[in-house]
Amino acid sequence: MELRKDPITRSWVLAGNNDEAGGPESQCPYCLDESPLTPKIVAPLAPILAIPTSGPSNGVPGAIRVYPHPSPLYTVEGGADRQAEGIYDRMRNLGAHEVIIESPDHYHELSFAPEAEIAALLRCWALRIADLKNDIRLRYVTVFKNRGDLSGQQLRHAHSELAASAFIPRRVLYELRSCKDYYQLKERCVFCDILRQEERQGLRVVDLSPRYLALCPFASRVPFEVWILPRPHHASFEEDLLQRPDDFELASLLRRVLARLEHVAPSYHLVLHTSPNTRARPETSGFWTTLADDYHWHIEIMPITEKRSRSYSIKETYYCPLPPEEAAARLRDLPTSFAGRAQAKLDFPAR
Amino acid sequence: MELRKDPITRSWVLAGNNDEAGGPESQCPYCLDESPLTPKIVAPLAPILAIPTSGPSNGVPGAIRVYPHPSPLYTVEGGADRQAEGIYDRMRNLGAHEVIIESPDHYHELSFAPEAEIAALLRCWALRIADLKNDIRLRYVTVFKNRGDLSGQQLRHAHSELAASAFIPRRVLYELRSCKDYYQLKERCVFCDILRQEERQGLRVVDLSPRYLALCPFASRVPFEVWILPRPHHASFEEDLLQRPDDFELASLLRRVLARLEHVAPSYHLVLHTSPNTRARPETSGFWTTLADDYHWHIEIMPITEKRSRSYSIKETYYCPLPPEEAAARLRDLPTSFAGRAQAKLDFPAR
Repeated sequence: MELRKDPITRSWVLAGNNDEAGGPESQCPYCLDESPLTPKIVAPLAPILAIPTSGPSNGVPGAIRVYPHPSPLYTVEGGADRQAEGIYDRMRNLGAHEVIIESPDHYHELSFAPEAEIAALLRCWALRIADLKNDIRLRYVTVFKNRGDLSGQQLRHAHSELAASAFIPRRVLYELRSCKDYYQLKERCVFCDILRQEERQGLRVVDLSPRYLALCPFASRVPFEVWILPRPHHASFEEDLLQRPDDFELASLLRRVLARLEHVAPSYHLVLHTSPNTRARPETSGFWTTLADDYHWHIEIMPITEKRSRSYSIKETYYCPLPPEEAAARLRDLPTSFAGRAQAKLDFPAR
Repeated sequence: MELRKDPITRSWVLAGNNDEAGGPESQCPYCLDESPLTPKIVAPLAPILAIPTSGPSNGVPGAIRVYPHPSPLYTVEGGADRQAEGIYDRMRNLGAHEVIIESPDHYHELSFAPEAEIAALLRCWALRIADLKNDIRLRYVTVFKNRGDLSGQQLRHAHSELAASAFIPRRVLYELRSCKDYYQLKERCVFCDILRQEERQGLRVVDLSPRYLALCPFASRVPFEVWILPRPHHASFEEDLLQRPDDFELASLLRRVLARLEHVAPSYHLVLHTSPNTRARPETSGFWTTLADDYHWHIEIMPITEKRSRSYSIKETYYCPLPPEEAAARLRDLPTSFAGRAQAKLDFPAR
């Protein structure tokens, strides 16, 4: 496994093979011994971080645990060894790839979890990101979650993933450049301007709380795409969150958004976009000019409602058959309570 | 249907619904009356362009015919009506969307077609692109082809599609910027430099002829990705091709590449990247600075080997499990003759 830079688009591509993770679900290494659903066969692993949660789950104490990914895309040893090959660039897949086990319960669902438990998970994401940003070799750390059969998830046990890399992924790089250009032109953050307009128009708002807003973006790439943003400007998710240890507001909003989405799109990709590592230093020179203050952290959720989106068959242009105003209106009307969803949950094909 | 500009990535997204094309295959409107495979029920359509081809196909004279797309993504009437909505931008889906019927034979395969017939198809692409570039409202014209069940093709009759739009699609825009930056730095075309290095190294070359080269790109996004490029520098596909009416070399190379690919990836997206319309004029001001001379036209083929590529589940970074050197070596070794492939063709699930 190595990283190669596309000389045209200048984005890094992971090349090479890694083993597929997984095995029979009855031997899930992430289920605790006491779980009645999946009897423990495999020896327990040593977690990188474990955070106890309040409520018991399936008779065992709740705990969020972080492990190295069993077939990692990035590894932490050594340097990036960036080198040219004629006009091309390549480097080692330096970084980190971790799995964040969200509960001892194999079939745990965030949309059914108590707010305190989701808040603990968000705190776990923030702690791992903050810790990895101490490594000056790493330029970017993100968390993502694939839910449902159509999302291409590798492990079945309820989990999210963390990826840290020595480069900034291309979409985040475009966002950073765009934020910088917009700030230079207007002296305002583009995401703050989006928030102000969305709050005023109300057309694409899915849910909101005093400090956070969930919306279907104006140029949605897929039906029911949702972004969650903090309403006050903040570039870094982990700094913002760790400053507010008793704040369950984001957890509560996230749970409601996921509960709404499950009615229309049980499979989704969720990605956290936070500022790059401003402490990062490259191998070859003293510093990078990594701008971050004009960035605005947010969560992007891309539901997968079709086996093959037409966005991939109409080449080079996204095509979204459902206008975001309609998507937001439908999502606003869907129930978010536990009671109304017990039956719906059983019918989900994505389980 | 309208176009919306993502304020962050600045790419245009098609929003809104259009009817799905298609119907029972026995009523295919693109089969000619005489076809023994699909009896003619629907009234014949009037083609925009028809090019006779040399050989008969299923008992009827061969002909390539171009029609307006039955459920078009772009329409040609009126202006783009570009307008702001607060910080957002939207415009009408001005443009053209056409289907290019490759043969009277419903089940026609390019990889089995005579070279003269493929040359006529390429000429048809070039003629339609050149014609639409006379429309100064249109900034970009491209041709793409989806083959196989996994490619999301809408119509079953063998066809390619043409899309003309009042904007440059984002990947092409990144390519244009990259070519311009590279030229300013080195005074050389980046694609010409890629060609020189690939010819010298030979590691990723799939096939070649005196004037064209097929290669697996250094930073392939998916296994068996193939680009076909002209070895002499030329920005515009249609100008290059129409200058060489008796040249079957590209047709011959394309047929061989598709024949090789069908053994390993019967489903693929094929996209032609040519220079933007340098005659285009925007509605609001006198001219655009559309650079094109430092561009280098090429064909990109993206095979679909998995139901859901891991590139979409590892967010924001492409992941290609097969190194392009291995992919190129395997493709080089596969047969391209008609004889060796008769049996393999019958087994294709994508038929």
